[in-house]
Amino acid sequence: MNYKMVAYLLGRILVIVALLMCLPFLIAILQKENTWAGFLYAIAGQLVLGLLCSINKPKNTEFYAKEGFVIVGLVWVLTSFFGALPFYLSGEIPSYIDAFFETVSGFTTTGASILNNIEALSYSTLFWRSFTHWIGGMGVLVFVLAVLPKSHASQSIHLMRAEVPGPQVGKLVSRMRGTARILYGIYVVMTLVEIICLRVAGLPWFDSILHAFSTAGTGGFSIKNASIAAYNSVAIDYIITIFMLLFGINFTLFYLILTGHALQALKSEELRWYGGIVALATVVITLNIMPQYNGFWDAFRYAFFQVGSIITTTGFITADYSKWPILSQLILMLILFMGACAGSTGGGFKVSRVIILVKNSFRELRQQIRPRSVTTISLEGRALDDKTVSGVLSYLGLYVFVFIGSHLLISLDSVSYLTGFAAVATCINNVGPGLEAVGPVENFSHFSNFSKLVLSADMLAGRLELLPILTLMSPATWRRR
Amino acid sequence: MNYKMVAYLLGRILVIVALLMCLPFLIAILQKENTWAGFLYAIAGQLVLGLLCSINKPKNTEFYAKEGFVIVGLVWVLTSFFGALPFYLSGEIPSYIDAFFETVSGFTTTGASILNNIEALSYSTLFWRSFTHWIGGMGVLVFVLAVLPKSHASQSIHLMRAEVPGPQVGKLVSRMRGTARILYGIYVVMTLVEIICLRVAGLPWFDSILHAFSTAGTGGFSIKNASIAAYNSVAIDYIITIFMLLFGINFTLFYLILTGHALQALKSEELRWYGGIVALATVVITLNIMPQYNGFWDAFRYAFFQVGSIITTTGFITADYSKWPILSQLILMLILFMGACAGSTGGGFKVSRVIILVKNSFRELRQQIRPRSVTTISLEGRALDDKTVSGVLSYLGLYVFVFIGSHLLISLDSVSYLTGFAAVATCINNVGPGLEAVGPVENFSHFSNFSKLVLSADMLAGRLELLPILTLMSPATWRRR
Repeated sequence: MNYKMVAYLLGRILVIVALLMCLPFLIAILQKENTWAGFLYAIAGQLVLGLLCSINKPKNTEFYAKEGFVIVGLVWVLTSFFGALPFYLSGEIPSYIDAFFETVSGFTTTGASILNNIEALSYSTLFWRSFTHWIGGMGVLVFVLAVLPKSHASQSIHLMRAEVPGPQVGKLVSRMRGTARILYGIYVVMTLVEIICLRVAGLPWFDSILHAFSTAGTGGFSIKNASIAAYNSVAIDYIITIFMLLFGINFTLFYLILTGHALQALKSEELRWYGGIVALATVVITLNIMPQYNGFWDAFRYAFFQVGSIITTTGFITADYSKWPILSQLILMLILFMGACAGSTGGGFKVSRVIILVKNSFRELRQQIRPRSVTTISLEGRALDDKTVSGVLSYLGLYVFVFIGSHLLISLDSVSYLTGFAAVATCINNVGPGLEAVGPVENFSHFSNFSKLVLSADMLAGRLELLPILTLMSPATWRRR
Repeated sequence: MNYKMVAYLLGRILVIVALLMCLPFLIAILQKENTWAGFLYAIAGQLVLGLLCSINKPKNTEFYAKEGFVIVGLVWVLTSFFGALPFYLSGEIPSYIDAFFETVSGFTTTGASILNNIEALSYSTLFWRSFTHWIGGMGVLVFVLAVLPKSHASQSIHLMRAEVPGPQVGKLVSRMRGTARILYGIYVVMTLVEIICLRVAGLPWFDSILHAFSTAGTGGFSIKNASIAAYNSVAIDYIITIFMLLFGINFTLFYLILTGHALQALKSEELRWYGGIVALATVVITLNIMPQYNGFWDAFRYAFFQVGSIITTTGFITADYSKWPILSQLILMLILFMGACAGSTGGGFKVSRVIILVKNSFRELRQQIRPRSVTTISLEGRALDDKTVSGVLSYLGLYVFVFIGSHLLISLDSVSYLTGFAAVATCINNVGPGLEAVGPVENFSHFSNFSKLVLSADMLAGRLELLPILTLMSPATWRRR
C-alpha cells in the first residue's frame, strides 16, 4: 500500500473540512455563543494534522482500488471524530459517543439523532449539524477531485468508485475533474433554489438554509423537534417533497439536461422505475390512510411527503407514520431498503440494483422453465454482462451479512425485535427514522454506547456502500506482502 | 408440453396417496369414529381421478424440466385438496380453507396449525395429520421413482431436481431408481428406530408413532396442545432433539455410511457447518437464557431442543421461546431462515446455500481489495463454477421477492409488523411456529381466508424450493408454442 499517498490525500481533505468548519465558528462568534471554543479546537486539530500529513507531496503518486477504499474509509471516520468535538466541548451533547453518533449520522446523511430536545441547541451547533449533511451529501472527496492536479485524473476514478453510490458511475468518469465541478455546481445551484423557495413560502432565512442543507444531502436533520411537521404548511411540505425527490435522482441526468440532452435523460430506465414506484407507493398509502385524514388531498399530502422522504432516505417527518395501517408502514419499510437512484445523494440499496435483481429473477425463472432459451437482461438499453449482475447479487449477500451481524450485536441491548431490525435498517440505508422505539417521533438516545458505535459503523458502511468500511476492517488490507 | 405424460404420472401418484389414506381409514373403522366417511370420499375421489388419468400410458414418454415442475407443483396442490377432505367432512375442521391450510402445512412438513384444541381431534384424524408429514417428508414423488419402470430413469432426474431440496442433488442422481429405494429404506428404518426409542422412554405406542412421523418429515405437528412440552420428560426431549438433527442431515451421507464410506461422510463440509452452527447457537442461547432456568443443564436442555427444532424446520416446542431474551429469539430466527442440510427432509434456505453465500461474499471482498488476484471458491472439495454460485444468488433474489410479496398481501389483515414477518418466514421455510401472534404457544386461526391461502402458497413454494410453484403461476408455462 502507498501509505505516503494515503496520508497526503487524507491531509488535504482534513484541511478542507477545517476550512468549512470556519463557517459555524463565525456564526458562534457573531452570535456570541460559547460554542466557538469547540469549533476552534476542531479546526486547529484538523489543520495541524492535515498540514503535517500533506506537507510533503510523495514522489510516487500511484494508487489503486485498495488505497482508494482506505482513504475514503479513513476520511469519513476522521472527519466524524473531529466533527463531533464542537458538540462535545460545548457541552450541548455531554457524551462523546453521542456526539460521534450524531456527527456520523450527519456526514453519512442519515439523520438519526440521539437528541431529545433539538430546539435547545445554539445557532452555531444547529448550523454545523445540518451543514454536515450538506458536506456529506456529495462526498467530501468531490471537493478533492475538483482541486486535484490534472495528472491525477486516472487515479481519481478509484476514489470516485469508492465514493459515489450505485453500481455504475457512468460515462462521466472519463472526465473526472470537470465532472466533479459540474456535479458540485448543480448541487450548489439546486440548494440555492430550494433556500429561496422555502424563504418565499414563509420560512425564516436560517430555517430555509438549514433545511435546504438537509434536503440536498438527503439527510433529514431538522432544527425542530417535530421535524417539518412543526411548520404545518402545505406549501413547505410540497416544496420539500419535490426537492427531496429531485436530490434522489442520478445527478448525471441533470448533467444531460444541462448539456441539452433532456429527452435522453427522461428516457432513463432508472428514472422511470423511480417515478413509477414513488407514484404507486403514494397512491396506495394515500388510499390506505384516508380514513385517518380529511379526505383524499389531505392524505395525499402526508403520503407523498413521507414516500419522498423515505425513498430518498432523507427522513424528514410530517406525520407519525407509526400510527398508519400496517400495509402503509410495510411499504415505507420496503422503499426504505430500496433507496434512491444510483449517483444521487441518497442512500439505500439503489433503484438500479433493485431493477437488476428483479430482471435477473425473471430471467432465472424463464431459464428454468425453458432451459434451452438464452436470455440476457439489459439496463438503460445496454445488455448487462454477468459480472455486473453477479456484482449486484454479491452486494446483496454482503449487505445481508452486515445487516444480520449488526442486528445480533445490538440485540444485546434487548431492545424489541422490530426496534432492532428497524434501527439497523434505517442506519445502514442512511434514512434516520425507523419503527417502534426508533420511530418517527423517537430517537436513538436509549441505546448503549456499544450499540451506538455499531450503528455508527452501519451508517458509514451503508453510505460508502460497504466496501471501504469492510476494507478498513479486513486484516488483508494491512498485511504486508 | 407433454400433457398426456403429465396426466399419466399425476394419476399414478394420486392412486398411491389414495392407498396410503386407507391406513387412517382403517383406524377410523377400528375405533368406530365417524371420520371414516371423509376418508372414504377422499380415497374414492383420488382413485377415480387417478385411474382415469393413468389408464392409458402415453406413447411419447419424454418430458423435461418444465413438465417436471408442473407435475410436482400439481401433485402437491391436488393431494392437499383431497387430503383436506377428511378434516372438513368429519366436521373436525369446520372451514374448508382451514382444512386445506392444515393439509398443506402437513404435506409441506411445515407444522403450522389453525387448530386451537388439537387434543379434541379423533384418533384417525390425528393419525392422518401426522402421517401427511411423513408422506411429505421424502416427497410423494419418491414413491413414484421407486415404482417407475426402469427406462424412465433419465427422466426422473427432472422430477428429482424439482423435488429434492438443495442446490445439488449429488452423485446419486445417476442411479435414480435404486437411489430412491435406498433413501426411502433409510427413512423407514430411522423412523422405526425413533418409534422404539420413544416407546422405551415411556410414550404410548400411538404417541410414539405419530411423533416419529412428525420428526422424520421435520414437520412439527404434535398430538398435544403444548407440543413436546406436554410430556415434560428429559429423555424424550433428548431423543427427539437427536432425531430431528439426524433427519436434518443430507440423506446421501447416510447412504455413504451404509456403503462403508463413513469417514468420507464425516468429512462433509456441509455437515461440519451444520454441526458447528447447532453447537454455537445452542451454547449462546443456553448462556443467554440461564437466568430463566435452574442452572446450565436445564437451560441447555431447552436451548438444544429448540435449536434442533428450528434449524431442522421441524417446529416442535418444549419452551415458550417468545419469553426468552431478544438475542436468543434473533438467533432462532436466523437459523429458521437458514434451515437444514440440502437433501434432507428439512426446509429453509439450506446450509449449503448459506455456505456458498458466505464464501462468495468473502471472495467478492478479497477481489475488491486485490483486483488482480483470481480466486475461486469450493464446496465439498470441488471448485464451484460461476453458474452454481449465480444460481444460489438468483435463488436468494427470487426468495426475497416472494417473501416481500407475501408479506405485503397478508399485511392487508393488519396483523402487527413482526407477526406478518414471522408468519411468512415460518411458512416459506416450512418451520411452523413464529413470533408474536404466530409464536410458539399461538396458532394461525386468526388470519383471514385470503391470508391463509397466501401462506399455503408460501409453504408449497418453500417446500418445493420456489420453482415448481412459480412455474405453475407463470403464464409462459401454459403458452402454446
